[in-house]
Amino acid sequence: MKEMAESLPIVTLTTDFGTREFYAGALKGAILAVCPGVSVIDITHEVRSHDVFEAAFTLACAYSAFPPGTTHMVVVDPGVGSDRRGVAVSAGKYFFVAPDNGCLSLALQREPVSVAVTIEAGHYFRTPVSDTFHGRDIFGPVAAYIARGIPVSKFGSEISDLKRLNLPGVKRKADGVLEGVVLHVDKFGNVITNITPESVASLTGTSPAHFVFVFEGQRIERHCRFYAEGAEPGPFSLLGSSGFYEIAAWRDSAARILKARRGSRVELEVRPS
Amino acid sequence: MKEMAESLPIVTLTTDFGTREFYAGALKGAILAVCPGVSVIDITHEVRSHDVFEAAFTLACAYSAFPPGTTHMVVVDPGVGSDRRGVAVSAGKYFFVAPDNGCLSLALQREPVSVAVTIEAGHYFRTPVSDTFHGRDIFGPVAAYIARGIPVSKFGSEISDLKRLNLPGVKRKADGVLEGVVLHVDKFGNVITNITPESVASLTGTSPAHFVFVFEGQRIERHCRFYAEGAEPGPFSLLGSSGFYEIAAWRDSAARILKARRGSRVELEVRPS
Amino acid sequence: MKEMAESLPIVTLTTDFGTREFYAGALKGAILAVCPGVSVIDITHEVRSHDVFEAAFTLACAYSAFPPGTTHMVVVDPGVGSDRRGVAVSAGKYFFVAPDNGCLSLALQREPVSVAVTIEAGHYFRTPVSDTFHGRDIFGPVAAYIARGIPVSKFGSEISDLKRLNLPGVKRKADGVLEGVVLHVDKFGNVITNITPESVASLTGTSPAHFVFVFEGQRIERHCRFYAEGAEPGPFSLLGSSGFYEIAAWRDSAARILKARRGSRVELEVRPS
Repeated sequence: MKEMAESLPIVTLTTDFGTREFYAGALKGAILAVCPGVSVIDITHEVRSHDVFEAAFTLACAYSAFPPGTTHMVVVDPGVGSDRRGVAVSAGKYFFVAPDNGCLSLALQREPVSVAVTIEAGHYFRTPVSDTFHGRDIFGPVAAYIARGIPVSKFGSEISDLKRLNLPGVKRKADGVLEGVVLHVDKFGNVITNITPESVASLTGTSPAHFVFVFEGQRIERHCRFYAEGAEPGPFSLLGSSGFYEIAAWRDSAARILKARRGSRVELEVRPS
Repeated sequence: MKEMAESLPIVTLTTDFGTREFYAGALKGAILAVCPGVSVIDITHEVRSHDVFEAAFTLACAYSAFPPGTTHMVVVDPGVGSDRRGVAVSAGKYFFVAPDNGCLSLALQREPVSVAVTIEAGHYFRTPVSDTFHGRDIFGPVAAYIARGIPVSKFGSEISDLKRLNLPGVKRKADGVLEGVVLHVDKFGNVITNITPESVASLTGTSPAHFVFVFEGQRIERHCRFYAEGAEPGPFSLLGSSGFYEIAAWRDSAARILKARRGSRVELEVRPS
Repeated sequence: MKEMAESLPIVTLTTDFGTREFYAGALKGAILAVCPGVSVIDITHEVRSHDVFEAAFTLACAYSAFPPGTTHMVVVDPGVGSDRRGVAVSAGKYFFVAPDNGCLSLALQREPVSVAVTIEAGHYFRTPVSDTFHGRDIFGPVAAYIARGIPVSKFGSEISDLKRLNLPGVKRKADGVLEGVVLHVDKFGNVITNITPESVASLTGTSPAHFVFVFEGQRIERHCRFYAEGAEPGPFSLLGSSGFYEIAAWRDSAARILKARRGSRVELEVRPS
């Protein structure tokens, strides 16, 4: 595939740097030092420390809202300084820069990769390169050069073995019963599952009218279209804004009510209309 | 009144999305997708979940520092997807976009409304519109179009019944005694009341020389001009930077000392000079 | 020395305002009101309340990643409204604006001051000036005017007695034994000391091959080049990205393991190769 022609001067950041340290600031500085007019946009700096999956999930839910040509950078990088690779990727309408540890996986499931390279071209780096902060010294500058229009292929050798996370899939457990897992619990206590309308359709061959989520024996019989429709006590299910079914509770935390955590198993019983 | 002619490419964000989720990132993406050169400025994403009053207070204290032509967007939106309206407003020198749940109330007490519309013009929306994330799919794009220069009147039908919060007023309790409430406790522990120099003047007919705040029987006899002037133990009162009287303590939390919370009642005894 | 000729339209912010209050938003607004096209970049708003040293440390670690011509603004300002001075400084390739309480100290140890002035020129201020929020009313506008190209010397009288923090120095305790202190514990639990390769070289006259940090009797025998190299239980030392030696633990908090805090004493035993 051919790399997209045009980048925009927009770089997004998804990291586990936290917001009280100098790390995010220094990273932004390194980007602006290469491309002073770029818009540096925080997605989040509060991925849990070293949590590659959370970074992958957050990026996958956010990246496609940005205009084509945006460069998305992820730095959750426990392997910094080791022989883990850094990668730059042109995929669909976007560019991505990250350590090659799977943090781009979920976004790249949705965007076809045009070109992926391992980052090698040291003349684009900030010098000297610290062994402990490639965000500032390598990924930031590379993202900024992409935002300035340098093609991804200039940063190193093409690769075809980007590291992928093994994602939990939705399984058909019995007739009309699917099994999934919790991908994320958000700050409202919404319990986001890996089950999508597409997985339901493909596993059941139908577009069901009735949904009952079952969480550790607790049956969630109400399925709503939006939060306020569920405005009575107890959890209910709905289709969330990133395309996954989730379990919520009106002005309350479904995660607390259900004792749900990331990785918790969840079942879905569907009946055709 | 006539709508202001000119918008600037500046959009501010006040939400309860938190900073560790993808929500704020996706919202910024949706704004940049409409207007790639816009400055997207976080006021805060840490309004307490669903706390419309806190959003209204924060916006009211921040909006007027921005240059005329700024578009201020608020998304604290428990009613998302229901029949609550979305609104776009031209008021004074600013533009505002929000769900019509009162979160603009306090700012609009200070800025005369020129045009207010209910948001209906779907061709400005991101598609498909999620029933659970109008921030990304409706409010963000509308704010961005305003920042690009589209007049507020283009987004829907004019309305004159914007939802207003019932704000706690300052009352005259006895001769020289006013009663107010705590609007906010900030991160320093400063206790911000709803009492202003203007309310004191209008209720007492004087500009008093002596202030004694009384909080649950505790008399706060010191009135200072700035924090360091109160540099000895115990709480003191002063006029805060957003125009409200507040109770503070030097390098300490007045809220902790006084056990004050939002909504706590406070009295002010004034004596003319 | 002569002041740098050119500023860039980039202003960074390091404050203790927190991220849930209106303070950071109002500050950004005041900057944009003077210079609507400026990039306002958060370093952090989560310096601990009134912690001038933490602000100084954060700025010192972040500022030099930014492009020459950036204006760095710090507002950790317990003395706001008192007779403490506000200062604007041209130093090395950067501009700085802050209350004169030492929060610029560590950065200015590295950048030679060209011009430092006490901020007096009221026609650059936002009016009226609140006695409790000089960030919004004085420092923000002044930083924005510098970003627009106004020379530092225009803001007031030149001074040569900028307030300096008394920084803990590294001491030679015995032959091959240095004594330092912990400057900072970061969000990963990394324990950042004040010991640098330069202080080791000057105090030992050698570039040692063996490092053993000693923390309250606990000997840290492993010295690694990067975090993943320390991928077994227990703490190890390494050279951090801001040039200080630090003690870390693989996917764990060295600070928790060692019960280390800012100000804790640490020893370093070095042996020449």
